[in-house]
Amino acid sequence: MDDHVTFSDITQAAGLVRGIAHITPVLTSGQLDDMIRGQVCLKCENFQRTGAFKFRGAYHAVSRLTTSGAAGPVATISSGNHGQALALAASLLGVSAEVVMPRPFSRAKYHAVLAYGGHVIESADRRAGEEALQELLARGRAIHVHAFNDPRVIAGQGTIMLEFHGQVADLDMLLAPVGGGGLLSGLCVAGHHLSPTLKIFACEPSGASDVAESIRLNRIIPMPAPDTVADGLRTSLGTRTLPILYAHLEGVLTVAEDEIFAAMRFAHERLKIVIEPSSAVALAPILRKEPAFAGKRVGIVLTGGNVDDNVFVRALESGR
Amino acid sequence: MDDHVTFSDITQAAGLVRGIAHITPVLTSGQLDDMIRGQVCLKCENFQRTGAFKFRGAYHAVSRLTTSGAAGPVATISSGNHGQALALAASLLGVSAEVVMPRPFSRAKYHAVLAYGGHVIESADRRAGEEALQELLARGRAIHVHAFNDPRVIAGQGTIMLEFHGQVADLDMLLAPVGGGGLLSGLCVAGHHLSPTLKIFACEPSGASDVAESIRLNRIIPMPAPDTVADGLRTSLGTRTLPILYAHLEGVLTVAEDEIFAAMRFAHERLKIVIEPSSAVALAPILRKEPAFAGKRVGIVLTGGNVDDNVFVRALESGR
Repeated sequence: MDDHVTFSDITQAAGLVRGIAHITPVLTSGQLDDMIRGQVCLKCENFQRTGAFKFRGAYHAVSRLTTSGAAGPVATISSGNHGQALALAASLLGVSAEVVMPRPFSRAKYHAVLAYGGHVIESADRRAGEEALQELLARGRAIHVHAFNDPRVIAGQGTIMLEFHGQVADLDMLLAPVGGGGLLSGLCVAGHHLSPTLKIFACEPSGASDVAESIRLNRIIPMPAPDTVADGLRTSLGTRTLPILYAHLEGVLTVAEDEIFAAMRFAHERLKIVIEPSSAVALAPILRKEPAFAGKRVGIVLTGGNVDDNVFVRALESGR
Repeated sequence: MDDHVTFSDITQAAGLVRGIAHITPVLTSGQLDDMIRGQVCLKCENFQRTGAFKFRGAYHAVSRLTTSGAAGPVATISSGNHGQALALAASLLGVSAEVVMPRPFSRAKYHAVLAYGGHVIESADRRAGEEALQELLARGRAIHVHAFNDPRVIAGQGTIMLEFHGQVADLDMLLAPVGGGGLLSGLCVAGHHLSPTLKIFACEPSGASDVAESIRLNRIIPMPAPDTVADGLRTSLGTRTLPILYAHLEGVLTVAEDEIFAAMRFAHERLKIVIEPSSAVALAPILRKEPAFAGKRVGIVLTGGNVDDNVFVRALESGR
């Protein structure tokens, strides 16, 4: 596959992840339906292997590398779900994975990367981590699998939309969180091929609202000091994701921090599922009952369920 | 239907709850599979309406009453999930519900009964509550829907097994928590009709281990001072449930309090679902990797997800 992600790339990716990635269920809730007098369909990638959708893109990327003869190792920089996903994907495909983790990171995620068979390289901060990664790559010691700015990763994330469409054919709208835009790019390419009238919205925290501005100006706006609990959404868009989002998005919805906690709490109390802050960003617009959703069938991608206990307890205590 | 619950009663119940009760998904987990070197299938009734399987039995019982011409209020005594279930079932079927709630009860459950349209009668304790209920019934003011010792309720709970069998046909073993035995009675009747070799196990907390003894002696052993966080499992068996369980159960598994908290934590951290302590009792035996499960396909009914925050936080903190 070349740099331009097509629907065909995504169907091929689906073939490669089949039987390896979980087919995640779609949950519905009478209470959410009542809020918009429509229907809300939750695609539960929090039930995906490693607890997040990132496994799809990572597994697809590594399987493309191994089938093209590369024997690894693979490397990335990530303090979050992509690192765990790459570690497990590499392990399943018999190659080793180097995961550069800039501090601060949670001990739970550190131990998860190790448990999945990955090798962790700690770095003092993001900048030092980038240098460590470049050094690894420059020495030819590893092949880079970027968390989102990689067509193989984007095609892997797009398999979510193929699966979702098979489960609920007639969505009017789709909401998904946006950080670097890898997930949303895959959703856009597959979603508009399958359903050209689908309205796709990116959801981001107000403390990291670079995407709304990036789309408005059609250039990547950096996010030097993001301030949000949604740790998966602190990055800026990439060169491969901006043009796709610019071409496909209907709009960008912005969510406040207290809405993120309230959505996590709603998921726990009412839906009986665990979602991480980044996922809650895509559920929150439903809870404020925006008139745009009235009478519509709205799909939401719940991207992951990896949340530290202290953050989770803050969510439980919110709104008390 | 008469007092003896048959498979035909359960298929009829399935017809009545269809389109009203949720068809709940079955989740699997590679980590659980690895623990027993077999397969674990989780029937997620924590995603059922009102957050627990009790809705099935309550809805079926009330719909039987209304189709037989009774328009009257229904009544029960419950500080737990049955009260909420009866309130919603009655509300959907256009009759009123009186729920006697003996103290202590959680404010969340009190408000849930009200939110579902039920009327709450508070009582100082269980004994005073029973008296209040008898008074209501004696004055002909309401029809009793017992939480478990009612053939219509048992048939309603049995619909879980019909659904589960349609999702996973070849279970070797089935684990479910036991309190009064209404759920397990329905599972036994449907389960052994569909699959005569299915081995069915009741799971109970060591702090309320009346069922093991009741089955051993084939008589109801009262549980005067249950000591367990699994509030749904503190009751004794009933006259209608003991004979069914005595005839069908393969065995009774007993679980310690720390195992209950560990299973709740596992569900949150790894499965990304919320389960209440009573559900955790049926998951805990898998986590201790009992050799009896090796190589088997084991079904587990996760009965509910209604858990108070303070109990949930204790579970999060367990095993630290």
